[in-house]
Parts: sequence; structure tokens; C-alpha cells
Amino acid sequence: MKMVKQYHLKGRNNFLPLKLENYIREKKENVNQVLKDVFINSSIPQNLKESMHYSLFAGGKRLRPILLYASYETYDDNVTKTNKTAAALEMIHTYSLIHDDLPAMDDDDFRRGHPTNHRQFDEATAILAGDALLTYSFEMIANDEQLSAEEKVVVLKWLAHCSGPEGMVGGQILDIEAESSQLSLEQMEKVHELKTGKLIQFAIYIGAFLAKVDEKTLNQLQHFSYYLGLIFQVQDDILDIVGTEEKLGKPVGSDEGNEKSTYPKLLGLEGAKKQKQLYVEKATKALHCANGNHSYLLSLLQYFSERDH
Amino acid sequence: MKMVKQYHLKGRNNFLPLKLENYIREKKENVNQVLKDVFINSSIPQNLKESMHYSLFAGGKRLRPILLYASYETYDDNVTKTNKTAAALEMIHTYSLIHDDLPAMDDDDFRRGHPTNHRQFDEATAILAGDALLTYSFEMIANDEQLSAEEKVVVLKWLAHCSGPEGMVGGQILDIEAESSQLSLEQMEKVHELKTGKLIQFAIYIGAFLAKVDEKTLNQLQHFSYYLGLIFQVQDDILDIVGTEEKLGKPVGSDEGNEKSTYPKLLGLEGAKKQKQLYVEKATKALHCANGNHSYLLSLLQYFSERDH
Repeated sequence: MKMVKQYHLKGRNNFLPLKLENYIREKKENVNQVLKDVFINSSIPQNLKESMHYSLFAGGKRLRPILLYASYETYDDNVTKTNKTAAALEMIHTYSLIHDDLPAMDDDDFRRGHPTNHRQFDEATAILAGDALLTYSFEMIANDEQLSAEEKVVVLKWLAHCSGPEGMVGGQILDIEAESSQLSLEQMEKVHELKTGKLIQFAIYIGAFLAKVDEKTLNQLQHFSYYLGLIFQVQDDILDIVGTEEKLGKPVGSDEGNEKSTYPKLLGLEGAKKQKQLYVEKATKALHCANGNHSYLLSLLQYFSERDH
Repeated sequence: MKMVKQYHLKGRNNFLPLKLENYIREKKENVNQVLKDVFINSSIPQNLKESMHYSLFAGGKRLRPILLYASYETYDDNVTKTNKTAAALEMIHTYSLIHDDLPAMDDDDFRRGHPTNHRQFDEATAILAGDALLTYSFEMIANDEQLSAEEKVVVLKWLAHCSGPEGMVGGQILDIEAESSQLSLEQMEKVHELKTGKLIQFAIYIGAFLAKVDEKTLNQLQHFSYYLGLIFQVQDDILDIVGTEEKLGKPVGSDEGNEKSTYPKLLGLEGAKKQKQLYVEKATKALHCANGNHSYLLSLLQYFSERDH
């Protein structure tokens, strides 16, 4: 994959063209605003609302909403149509992090440099804040006045599927089960497809679906997003070795001390980088087979594969 | 409220007419079958599926699905239309019990005479099984071929609203916050309306909605279900004093040792019974103002108010 890198900002990541950086900032601000507006006029009990709000605004990069916006804008301009769906997606991602961090799960005290939800509040509140974010995301879409009933049903169906027991939650169980064994590449891909990949697949698929693209293009985008999810994970594993704590907002080397399966453990660091490159090539190929001008999706693909945090 | 009690079964609850008992058994078997069929052909990881299944079939009385069926059948015969919605409602109720029982919440080892989910499996699995049941319930409705897109959206909207941060989960937070203080009657009613009442309101409202009843009737049924939810809770509190462990499947007197607000603590046992009677009268009045032949709903109201487990 070749990209034109015209406008580099001094001292920034050298792969990030100015245009993409502006795009990411703009979309991030946009989804943040939607998420802020979500609770206005709600009658959520104060403490619960604070806990939901705390994790929603604890430094998330909003990558999934940005992907959804980019997928939509590849095919249509009226991107405000996807605002609630993008916000709901980020809520689901946030709930999964809150529950993942719980003592019975990963038992993490910090995330993105801030105390995790159960450390800032307490465990019961964190469990309920997760439950609340998950449930509220479905309510938001069901109430979204920008979507037709038929569109809402498709969005809700996919959101539930991608985040539920055959999607993200299923991946979390498989991930826990795999903690003390070295998986094969194929098994690892399955875990990551579900745990990390499904919400990314949702973002790409539903963005394009809401822009009313044809079936063939949707299929190609599903291939693209499958590899994009794997790229996200392999880069996570690589950053755990070569990244810096300052940029990641969490300790590096955390995979080394445990039995968790990672790409570098299975393939070596160079092997992991080669595997990532293979995914990038497959993702790029799938995208080129889909209709549309994919400049933002291609840029985001590169951004995902080379991100340093 | 007057009821014709024609066919009493010897040794059974003396308020339970045979007809209602048959009705309850039939509907219970029906929703059990729907719940069993839910996982056929699913690709849920085995351990997660077992955990979800375990709690779904750990002796639930299926009161909420039965109410939903009864509400629908008050107005229309084609009750199979509500099967998936009834099953989804029971899944949401089950998820709430799994999370409620967790060590960070009520820390219960047994429910209905069986080990709680986190005792039978482990805490991480219990958290994820709850998340999975919650999410799967929305997916099931979004996929329900018996409902139109417009109907699905209304069902999903209400299910999310009643179970989310402005409904059941909100009630759970208020309940936790109230643990060390004696609430006023009004405050207690608010907690119970959200924590217990909202799913009961959903059952009654959505049953009638799917049977296409008019707005005025829906409004009356909302009043009815509001009081029905409170009746459910006041009877729970009364049973904690006068019930037997054998019938309840959990220790009695558990409210006494803690600071939890209950009707008997606030009003005395006789006062709690009087308050229940007041709710029964208000519920009955609301029902009589609604269109339809409410024999099952009236019988269920009596059943709820006099149940011994």
C-alpha cells in the first residue's frame, strides 16, 4: 500500500498526514459532543450517571466511531445521520473496558493513565455502569430520529450480534480460557476477531449500510474490516514490546510475564510485523475491490497499523 | 376485587384457582421451550453458553413472561407472536439476578436452592454470562420474524428503557445507596418502581401494545402495572418475615439483620399488609378502567399479592 504523505506536522508521527489528523480530531470532537449531549434531560440517578460519564470521558481515542464516520463518508455526505450510532458504539466499547478491568477479570487499577471505574467508584457501581452503558446504547439507537425503523432494526441487530455472546463477549470468554495456553495462529485470530474485531466490523459495515451501499461492496468491506481488526490487535501486541508507557498510558511488557498468547510470542517480533504486513495487504486488496473512494479508510488502515498508542 | 374460585386443588395455595394454575403452567412450559430453542444453531462458546443456560434454567418462576402473555391474551389470541419478547424479558431478568448475586453486589451463594452463577462457574464467567444474556435479548427481538420493524423498535426501546439506567439498573443503584438508611414510603416506592417494577411494566405494556390496543387502554394498563410492581415487592418483604425457607429457596429473615428499607420496617407487618391491600385496590381500579376482559390479569394480581414464594 502506498500513501501520499504531503503535509507532515513537525514532531508528530511521521506517517500521519495532516489531513487525516484533522479528520480524526474533527470526528473525535464530534462524537464527544454527541456523548456529552446524551445525558441531558435524562433521569439517570446521579451516582450512576457520574460513573458512566467518568469512563466515557477517560481519554478514549474514539477509533471505532471514527471508523464508522469514515465508512459512511466514503459513500455519503450526510454524516450526522450516524451520530447516535457512533456514540452507541463507543458506549459499548466503554462498557466492555469497565467490565474487563474488574478485579474478577483483568484486575486493572489504571486505564489510559486514570484510575479504572471500580477504583474511582466501587465494584458494584462499575458493574452497573457497564450494564447501564450497554443498555443505554440500544435505547439511544431505538430512539434515533435520523434512522428509519428498518435501519434501526439492522443497526440494533448487528450491534447486539457484534457485542454479544457470538461476538465480543464470546471473544472475552475465549480469551480468558486461552490465558494459560499458547494458541495456534488460527485460534488466536478467532479470539481477536470476536473480542476486538467484531466492533470494528460493526463500524465499517454499518457505516456503509447507513450510506445505502450495494451488497457486493458490503461484502468486500467485511473482508476489509476483518483484517483491520486483526491489524489492531497485532499492533497492540507489538506495542506491548516496543511501545512506551508514556504514550500507551499503561505499563509495557505486561504480556511478557503471563501466559497470554500474543503474535510476538508465537511468531517472534519480526514475524509479528510480517504478519501485520500480510493483513495490511489483504485489507488493502479487499478495499480496492469495493466501490468508492477509500482515501480515509486507507489512511486509517495505515494509521491503525503504525499507531504508537 | 372479587374472584370466582371454582376448582381448588387440595393442599395447594387456597387462593389459586385451577384454571389460573393451568394457565401459569402452560405459559411457563411455553417460555421454557422458547428459551431452550434459543441456543440451537448458535455459535456461542461452550462455557459461556453453559453458564447462560444454567441460570436461565435454575428454577425461575417466569412471572414476567406469564404477565406478558396474559396482557397480550387479554386482547388477542395469536399469542405466539410474543414468544421471543417473553423469552428476551426473562433473559434480562436472569442477567439482573446473576449480576445482583455477585460478591461485589449482594454476595449471594444460593438462589432458588441452587448455587448462584459465580459459585457454580466463576466470577468472570458470571459477569460475562450476564452481559451476554442482556445483549442476546436485544438481538433476539431484532431478529424476531413475527414482529414488524416498527413493532421491534417499540419493543426494543421499551425493553432498553425499562432495564437500563432510567429503569432497573437505576433502581439497583438507588437500592445500594439506600442500604444504610430508612427511606420514606415515597422514596421506597421510587426504588421499587425502578428495580422491580419496570420489567413488570414492560410485560404489561408491551403485551397489550403487540395486541394493538388503543392509547387510553395502554395508559390504564401502565397504572395497573405500576401498582402490580409495588405489590410484588411488598409481598417479597412480607414473605421475608412470614415465609418459609423451603418454599422461598432462600433464607428468610435476611432483611432483619441489615439496614435495608422494607415495608414491614417502615409500616410494621400489619401496616405493610394494609399498604399492599391499598395497592391491590388501585391496581384493580386501573384495570377496570381499561378495555378488555381482564380475568387472567385479575387472577394474576391476586396471585402476586398472595403468593407464598
